Amino acid sequence: MKFADFFCPKSVAVIGASRDKEKVGYTIVDNIIKSGYKGKILLVNPNAAEIHGIKCYKSVLDIKVDIDLAIMVIPSKHVLHALDDCAKKNTRFLIIISAGFKETGREGAILEKQIIDKAHIYNIRILGPNCLGMIDFNCPLNASFSPNMPEKGTIAFLSQSGALGTAVLDWAKTNGMGLSKFVSMGNKADISEIDLFKDWLDDKNTNVITAYVEGVTNGRQFMDVCSKVTKQKPIIIIKSGNTDAGAKAVSSHTGTLAGSSKAYEAAFRQTGVIRAGTIKDLFNLAAAFAHQPLPTGKNIAIITNAGGPGIMASDACEENGINLAQIKKETVEELKNFLPPAGNFYNPIDVLGDALAQRYAKTFEVILKDKDINAVMVLLTPQAMTQELETAKALVEALKKSGRKIPVVTSFMGGHEVKEGVDYLNSSGIPSFSIPEEAVQALKALIDQAEWINKKQDELRIFKADKKYAAEIFRRNLDRNHYEIGEMEAREILAAYDIRVPYGAVAKNITDAKEIIKKTGFPVVMKIDSPDILHKSDVGGIKVGIENEVDLDAAFESIISSVKKFMPDARINGISIQEMIKDKKEIIIGVNKDPQFGHMIMFGLGGIYVEVLKDVSFRIAPLKESDAREMIEEIKAIKLLKGVRGESPSDIDSVVEVLLKISQLVTDFPDIMEMDINPLFVKEKGKGSIAGDARISIQNKE
Amino acid sequence: MKFADFFCPKSVAVIGASRDKEKVGYTIVDNIIKSGYKGKILLVNPNAAEIHGIKCYKSVLDIKVDIDLAIMVIPSKHVLHALDDCAKKNTRFLIIISAGFKETGREGAILEKQIIDKAHIYNIRILGPNCLGMIDFNCPLNASFSPNMPEKGTIAFLSQSGALGTAVLDWAKTNGMGLSKFVSMGNKADISEIDLFKDWLDDKNTNVITAYVEGVTNGRQFMDVCSKVTKQKPIIIIKSGNTDAGAKAVSSHTGTLAGSSKAYEAAFRQTGVIRAGTIKDLFNLAAAFAHQPLPTGKNIAIITNAGGPGIMASDACEENGINLAQIKKETVEELKNFLPPAGNFYNPIDVLGDALAQRYAKTFEVILKDKDINAVMVLLTPQAMTQELETAKALVEALKKSGRKIPVVTSFMGGHEVKEGVDYLNSSGIPSFSIPEEAVQALKALIDQAEWINKKQDELRIFKADKKYAAEIFRRNLDRNHYEIGEMEAREILAAYDIRVPYGAVAKNITDAKEIIKKTGFPVVMKIDSPDILHKSDVGGIKVGIENEVDLDAAFESIISSVKKFMPDARINGISIQEMIKDKKEIIIGVNKDPQFGHMIMFGLGGIYVEVLKDVSFRIAPLKESDAREMIEEIKAIKLLKGVRGESPSDIDSVVEVLLKISQLVTDFPDIMEMDINPLFVKEKGKGSIAGDARISIQNKE
Repeated sequence: MKFADFFCPKSVAVIGASRDKEKVGYTIVDNIIKSGYKGKILLVNPNAAEIHGIKCYKSVLDIKVDIDLAIMVIPSKHVLHALDDCAKKNTRFLIIISAGFKETGREGAILEKQIIDKAHIYNIRILGPNCLGMIDFNCPLNASFSPNMPEKGTIAFLSQSGALGTAVLDWAKTNGMGLSKFVSMGNKADISEIDLFKDWLDDKNTNVITAYVEGVTNGRQFMDVCSKVTKQKPIIIIKSGNTDAGAKAVSSHTGTLAGSSKAYEAAFRQTGVIRAGTIKDLFNLAAAFAHQPLPTGKNIAIITNAGGPGIMASDACEENGINLAQIKKETVEELKNFLPPAGNFYNPIDVLGDALAQRYAKTFEVILKDKDINAVMVLLTPQAMTQELETAKALVEALKKSGRKIPVVTSFMGGHEVKEGVDYLNSSGIPSFSIPEEAVQALKALIDQAEWINKKQDELRIFKADKKYAAEIFRRNLDRNHYEIGEMEAREILAAYDIRVPYGAVAKNITDAKEIIKKTGFPVVMKIDSPDILHKSDVGGIKVGIENEVDLDAAFESIISSVKKFMPDARINGISIQEMIKDKKEIIIGVNKDPQFGHMIMFGLGGIYVEVLKDVSFRIAPLKESDAREMIEEIKAIKLLKGVRGESPSDIDSVVEVLLKISQLVTDFPDIMEMDINPLFVKEKGKGSIAGDARISIQNKE
Repeated sequence: MKFADFFCPKSVAVIGASRDKEKVGYTIVDNIIKSGYKGKILLVNPNAAEIHGIKCYKSVLDIKVDIDLAIMVIPSKHVLHALDDCAKKNTRFLIIISAGFKETGREGAILEKQIIDKAHIYNIRILGPNCLGMIDFNCPLNASFSPNMPEKGTIAFLSQSGALGTAVLDWAKTNGMGLSKFVSMGNKADISEIDLFKDWLDDKNTNVITAYVEGVTNGRQFMDVCSKVTKQKPIIIIKSGNTDAGAKAVSSHTGTLAGSSKAYEAAFRQTGVIRAGTIKDLFNLAAAFAHQPLPTGKNIAIITNAGGPGIMASDACEENGINLAQIKKETVEELKNFLPPAGNFYNPIDVLGDALAQRYAKTFEVILKDKDINAVMVLLTPQAMTQELETAKALVEALKKSGRKIPVVTSFMGGHEVKEGVDYLNSSGIPSFSIPEEAVQALKALIDQAEWINKKQDELRIFKADKKYAAEIFRRNLDRNHYEIGEMEAREILAAYDIRVPYGAVAKNITDAKEIIKKTGFPVVMKIDSPDILHKSDVGGIKVGIENEVDLDAAFESIISSVKKFMPDARINGISIQEMIKDKKEIIIGVNKDPQFGHMIMFGLGGIYVEVLKDVSFRIAPLKESDAREMIEEIKAIKLLKGVRGESPSDIDSVVEVLLKISQLVTDFPDIMEMDINPLFVKEKGKGSIAGDARISIQNKE
């Protein structure tokens, strides 16, 4: 599906065009004309002969030519009929500006569904309803009712809130931020971020994709598309409705089912989506990505004419894991040739308060020659002699002359004094931020994106598993309306997926017991196995920590005689003998099915780490090996697995495998709603992991 | 010390006034005149007859009147001499603009010290050297070389970086932010933030105190002054040099010794100083404090004309612990009277995209009548029909009419479209922020400040302690050049400060042992006490977990006979018997002496919580009870002490007492450099805490 005819159609019809300047039906026509649209403009209004000098048709059917894109600004009850008419004119895309659908309640939702179903039959794609429309800055075409049209640029923005869209357009226009496309998705009944991200991957006019999203329509598809797009273009999203309070506001607003915040966080991370905290952050990052190349490392040089901002930038770099480059001896020598002795030749490089444009430029040139430096940040405060605009020009010139493709970010701090310089830099493709911390944040995003793009793509590992056997257990439970699968069967399922569970078996006699010990080794736990005995320890039916054959003999006899004494009539199957796991750490692996993204896998250390400290990480299944490793590395208590205070490291590789096997299991059985392995015992490096206990619940489809 | 004659002197002399427009000596004169200064302006320049129409004196001594404030813009080598001259003219304050002092190295530092020492004798206070000067917006007097003079307002700003000061002045002027005072501290050789904060407490023109600080001169005084000031006026500080990279930049910049970041964090928290992350945050918060009253609770109402920004604001409130108020039934009914049915009558209250000024104002009025609402946030996006300026006016009017003293913050989002509205709000004392998140952040600061002001002041608790005995131990160690005090003596010191250590004594025979048990109770640990036996366990000299008298008898005999067998010649003092602590949690209490702030006390749970998770809190001594309680509450693992999973709660009150006693100990003995109680065993609620092990190191003064 290509959206070329949507963003730049050969003909646009406005159904519900109006002569009344107060009406949206007027504004849209006005905007289309003023935007310089070069295709055919077709207006439909049964009561007007012409609007803005363009002839009006009484009905869509009166139009003689095909309509590529139709824009409806008519009451919701007329939309269905107008859709039929459009279909006859080979319309491919429809923008429904009108409100009165899902957002108003049940009736509106039904109408919306009818329209979408019919459009599907006609093969017509719909933007909206209840939206602001869209703008293509290259076509050009302003098919929205926002009169604010910022400059043309390379940032595409889509919004699930029309009102926020108007604020963003106004802001972009005021601040000279250039856009390539603007889309207001409204109720998002058909065309969604998924379609648009996919389309913008191939849009040569778009370098950066940005979006305000309240909820994602199809989590799986969203992830697939984002994974693909982000390897070529950054996607920056502000996702609102993160907290309980926010999520309540979402559902009263658009009726979108807000997936849990953790699921979004995991989905964004796994697909390289950059999450912005605020709309300001979103555009700061977009400004950096719009023209800057990605860095090849994270060693940066800071050039400043004042100490204070240099310190602020250094602080921010440290907090963001960006290295202040060690300036090479040769470079320092070269700087000493022309910088005053009171300057600082190491990072941050201080060119001093009396630096004119040429001193800044010279310093920048010298730094650019040092190939070990991967990015440069230039800070400026407007002091008595400072040449703000000239410095901006000299920096742009020096970068061009150097021929280096290296990210450069700046912060010219102040107001009127620095404005010309800031504008010059921004319009030359070097972003200038109002404070050093924002410049660092932008640089950090560039570094992260470079790492994401260079990250080795690992294939999904498939483990040998007895899927049929597991399926049989699930079926058996479902047949009996059991939705909670108990410990013993859950263990069998794990075993079918090659996840080790404790060795053990039931011994009828001491000879059996010795046979079992050959497999389990010592120590073992011994428990009476009898359908009649519920509280085993009350009748002396349990012995733990059996270390050798002598103790085994004694324990066997003691259990049998004790049980016979207390419950002479109990039926006895034998004694269950199970290995005791030594030298282990306890881990919890959990699975929860998120309504948007499907199975979400949780990892954490057992006990208080999960319950009290909430030190856990999440990823969406299916997991790749890199996902599994990252989620293990992510928890704060990871050092405990790596071995602290002389302890030997745990077998992290085996935990990775368990995570991947669980991922395979839940992917094979989408009906699994929840599952836990708690604890998973992890032994020393090389010695594996063992699922101590497990619990699975499956979906009740009734 | 009052600074009235500094900020608004009756006469100002510029020593080094210049006719050359490129020179600072010219700019300063120009700025003084243009700022509208009404006092006497006296210029000194041996080579000029007049500057700007004002007569020039050849020397300070030629001036016939007293000089309240002298500003020096002469080479550093001439400053000392000029200072002598000033003293003869009864000068009380001096601003040294000139550079060439501490910041240039050893020689400069010596010169700086000579000047300060002399000024001290003359009783002259000095701002700088190496600074931008100062501005008083009410006097008015621009005694700086920055030509940018923002509007008069109620925010005082001081900066340890002159260059940052210029940027801030430019920014404030451009953005209509009003200042009361501006001070550039330069090398801060004499006048520091401590003097100025103290002075500004009584300055009726200043409502908010803000500062950019790289390091504090005298931590203890700083804390004393801040504690006092913040109870009446907010102090907002941006402290840079937080991280290793940043701190390095600080020391190469001003030579200030940057105290550890943790110490600053603790000092700010204990004294109610608000820490801003960036210069933007600083001014956002200042804008809120400049005119807003403090809230009496944290229930807020949000009014918006768009869902998206409402969700963003809700998210931010939740993250900041601000409650979205439950809108009362009566209020909802009243809203329903005039809001369209599609609106939202609950928080966030959605007046819909077509809301005109009157609908906004009416809604605001209704909300203001609800006394359960403690603060209001109004959000606006510039939609087709939105009346930005009219809405601003109507809101200001409605607030005035309501007569309520309640904080109101707004975010009118966008650019040109909302500018007039934003300017109107700001100039009417209702701050408007560019994004909802910043409005929430400001509100959060207002709420925190209200809590700080209402916080009950608790007195320092003094515990009975045998200071003399502890002093004796310290002296004994110092006499032998021992700077590390070992476990046994450290325990004695703790005991002298009434911190419980494990009971125990040496028993010569079994009768002694039984006597000791009466005090320790069972279980106990028994250890051979012999000067000749180093590895006690190798000779069977240790028994743990002795639970009763029978075992005690047996163990006593067994230890003696075993030791006699292995080391027949060892001298035996007896057997040390010590209580074993049961049912306890382990805590670490540490002390570290920070160069700026003195003793910093650390609290955390033992073992991996401190070592791996770094889950610790810090406070500066002396601690008040509220400090001790807060530092305990601050750690993430606090739930473990309160009792999770059915465990009984630990004796937190006893930990509070130990913290306070340690605070008293280190305050009594300033020479303590470091100390640890590790572990402190905390028993169940009501059963106390016991210091298991301790270590103290004292200062080697040589």
